[in-house]
Amino acid sequence: MDFQRLTPELITAFEQIVGSEYILTPQLAEADAYASYGRDHTEDLHFAPEVVLRPANAEEISQIVRLCHEHRLPITARGAGTGLSGGALPIHNGVVLSTDRLNRILKIDERNLQAIVEPGVINQVLQDAVREVGLFYPPDPASKGSCFLGGNLSQSSGGPKAVKYGTTKDYVLNIQVVLPTGEIIWTGANTLKNATGYNLTQLMIGSEGTLGIITCIVFRLLPFPQQNILMLVPFRQEEQAAEAVSETFRAGIVPSGMEFMEREAIEWSARYLNIDISLPEDIRAHLLIELDGQDLDQLYKEAEQVYAVLEKYDVGDILLADTAAQKDELWKIRRNIGNAVRYNSVYKEEDTVVPRAELPTLLKGVKEIGGRYGFKSVCYGHAGDGNLHVNIIRGDLTDEQWNVGLQDPISELFRLCVKLGGTISGEHGIGLVQKRYIGIALPDVNLNLMRGIKQVFDPHGIMNPGKIF
Amino acid sequence: MDFQRLTPELITAFEQIVGSEYILTPQLAEADAYASYGRDHTEDLHFAPEVVLRPANAEEISQIVRLCHEHRLPITARGAGTGLSGGALPIHNGVVLSTDRLNRILKIDERNLQAIVEPGVINQVLQDAVREVGLFYPPDPASKGSCFLGGNLSQSSGGPKAVKYGTTKDYVLNIQVVLPTGEIIWTGANTLKNATGYNLTQLMIGSEGTLGIITCIVFRLLPFPQQNILMLVPFRQEEQAAEAVSETFRAGIVPSGMEFMEREAIEWSARYLNIDISLPEDIRAHLLIELDGQDLDQLYKEAEQVYAVLEKYDVGDILLADTAAQKDELWKIRRNIGNAVRYNSVYKEEDTVVPRAELPTLLKGVKEIGGRYGFKSVCYGHAGDGNLHVNIIRGDLTDEQWNVGLQDPISELFRLCVKLGGTISGEHGIGLVQKRYIGIALPDVNLNLMRGIKQVFDPHGIMNPGKIF
Repeated sequence: MDFQRLTPELITAFEQIVGSEYILTPQLAEADAYASYGRDHTEDLHFAPEVVLRPANAEEISQIVRLCHEHRLPITARGAGTGLSGGALPIHNGVVLSTDRLNRILKIDERNLQAIVEPGVINQVLQDAVREVGLFYPPDPASKGSCFLGGNLSQSSGGPKAVKYGTTKDYVLNIQVVLPTGEIIWTGANTLKNATGYNLTQLMIGSEGTLGIITCIVFRLLPFPQQNILMLVPFRQEEQAAEAVSETFRAGIVPSGMEFMEREAIEWSARYLNIDISLPEDIRAHLLIELDGQDLDQLYKEAEQVYAVLEKYDVGDILLADTAAQKDELWKIRRNIGNAVRYNSVYKEEDTVVPRAELPTLLKGVKEIGGRYGFKSVCYGHAGDGNLHVNIIRGDLTDEQWNVGLQDPISELFRLCVKLGGTISGEHGIGLVQKRYIGIALPDVNLNLMRGIKQVFDPHGIMNPGKIF
Repeated sequence: MDFQRLTPELITAFEQIVGSEYILTPQLAEADAYASYGRDHTEDLHFAPEVVLRPANAEEISQIVRLCHEHRLPITARGAGTGLSGGALPIHNGVVLSTDRLNRILKIDERNLQAIVEPGVINQVLQDAVREVGLFYPPDPASKGSCFLGGNLSQSSGGPKAVKYGTTKDYVLNIQVVLPTGEIIWTGANTLKNATGYNLTQLMIGSEGTLGIITCIVFRLLPFPQQNILMLVPFRQEEQAAEAVSETFRAGIVPSGMEFMEREAIEWSARYLNIDISLPEDIRAHLLIELDGQDLDQLYKEAEQVYAVLEKYDVGDILLADTAAQKDELWKIRRNIGNAVRYNSVYKEEDTVVPRAELPTLLKGVKEIGGRYGFKSVCYGHAGDGNLHVNIIRGDLTDEQWNVGLQDPISELFRLCVKLGGTISGEHGIGLVQKRYIGIALPDVNLNLMRGIKQVFDPHGIMNPGKIF
């Protein structure tokens, strides 16, 4: 694509649309604040936007996008910048459009168990708001305290509860979108079922901001599960932990969380949080298992079934969390593994996913590949979904080893995923950093269909260019 | 589109691909058998194919499609022909491709709770096969005893269990598709999560055979719920039955079935099945409510909560089905309403859907519109999903009234759905018969995006032309 550059006239036009308070340029903004719009949570990458706009609503976004469309200016929408694949990075510079001011919960519809929400609402804020009226929005990425729902849609985010409740995509009924041509549409209807034309709603989810900018979302909600049980199960062998996952489901139990953590994942996170834990020396991995529902007696029955499954394995003392505080602490440790790894070292996070029973094979493969190429990894993730986050630690790898040398082992890892029936991203998206590997997951025929769809939506290719494919 | 006609050379080429046993032409086939390929379950419509092909596998389908692509020959894929919107009708003649020989369950993967299935497998056959190993495939359209899973995907089919378990789309992980150019792809991966490029899997589901021919499906499965409770609740006012639906969910209960039936729906179906029921004179409608799970005590607790909700309404004696035979009979009555209506009269079935709490308003609107335009309707459907099947009975309407006069009231009905946040098809698709109304649900911008996508997949427009938009 041949993009144009920003002109003083365009800056004036943008300023008229959003107001002078809500336009940032390198010349006028405070340097650190400005630079933050060129980063997300992906490695240590940075790309400078030419201008940052913070519009208030869909109409302003439509006007901005029309100008970008007309003047062939790249535009990259941005949520909270917590993405892990570089999806929000403005790699062709141009406009960064922040959705932080579209941050209202417009309606919680208790009669229909729905919520109408702007994309800049933080995931946890919605969870809390609906819980106050006894309702439940399940998708809960690790960054739920800061990530925006718009970003959750764009990246098809998951989280621990996905194993029972599905991912973001399973809670979206309808989306208001500003198309790359500036038109504003709703993708569907506010109904649980819809067989009226192609599913543009699901096409938009996971399209990483390349097909349009999300400006309003209609979610479906569930009754809040009032009870839960949380247990931490230590294993003396990593692969046994992975095996126990599939066995649990075969026993007829669908946990609301089934998280795998290598010993180091849990240790690093506890240290990062200043939580004192001391693991017996022979423990190599843990499963964090949550059961939820409306009836505690019922959950204890299920917990007994889980214990029966675990008896087959070489496990240590199972910790059954018996207070809300203890549960919070365990989940906090789990959620902060990513932060702890980031704090310890520059790292690359691979979001591998396979059918869940293939997890032991995948885990073994990760370690074997790491051993052969000489890198260390810390693994954890949503074992119930077969979704393993492989954190490759930079440690003392040279620039050459880090930037180039890892491409072969990562390719091997992804080929293993695909061979096992899986793919290269379960919930983080492809964005920028996995783009070079997408050919491992998808042949040219698939990619050309995607490129064709992109062209239909975005004839000038202005929207988040250079991502996915 | 300018289509070409079939030539003797093409017939020979097709015969070489599928074998002479599996090609039917008007000249050679028995007339009735041939005519059946020009019909489905939609009203009394018929369009004659020029040739019917019954290939054995994806490779044969690919060869057939390549020929059609090259020679601009329309091709319409066909499952069991149970569709209710005319999706399988070859309105531009050409090739009808039957998937009835792709009828194998290739694998039931108990380790991963998945099944790999060909599109010509009957829904009930899959349900029974997975149940034998303790697993559960929930989507259950009324025609489950005869409809094909490929058709279920194409039309985004639902069924009574969708209220708790979702529709077909929620169980499909990956699809093998022969594209309109003849290429064979898989749309995704065999994983519960996938954030790897655009969601071609969900784009294919509900695309009504216009984007490709489904040749293999990977489903996810659940543990089979071992227990259930079924109750039939009679109401003295239709709208109260509709109101009780939303109240049940607000009480925190998610039934596995929540079906609405007008008095006449249940009466006609019982008569059609030769089942003796006698309803008290003042009963106007019923809700059929099913609860399911692994623990019967738990279900009785939930049933008590349902009773507490129902106490607010003017209901008759609640029938709690206490044997498997009684449950089967009640479900049989529900499932055969469509057949009974068809047996009584020519009819048009409108597959209206709204947010569930708007059901009373929709129902009132249906009757008001019917009263004003002078037609009778029998209403029933998946109340828990807000999905109401409105059967307009031909009765003694003239050809003019039936073919032209109903367009205005149906348009009014659909505009009401859209005004209530709903749309014009919940689970039957648009196909041929709802096509003229799609503009009520979707503006031109949406339709043009869909047409653009169609063009990307099918540049010559050969695949099921004339459907949806």
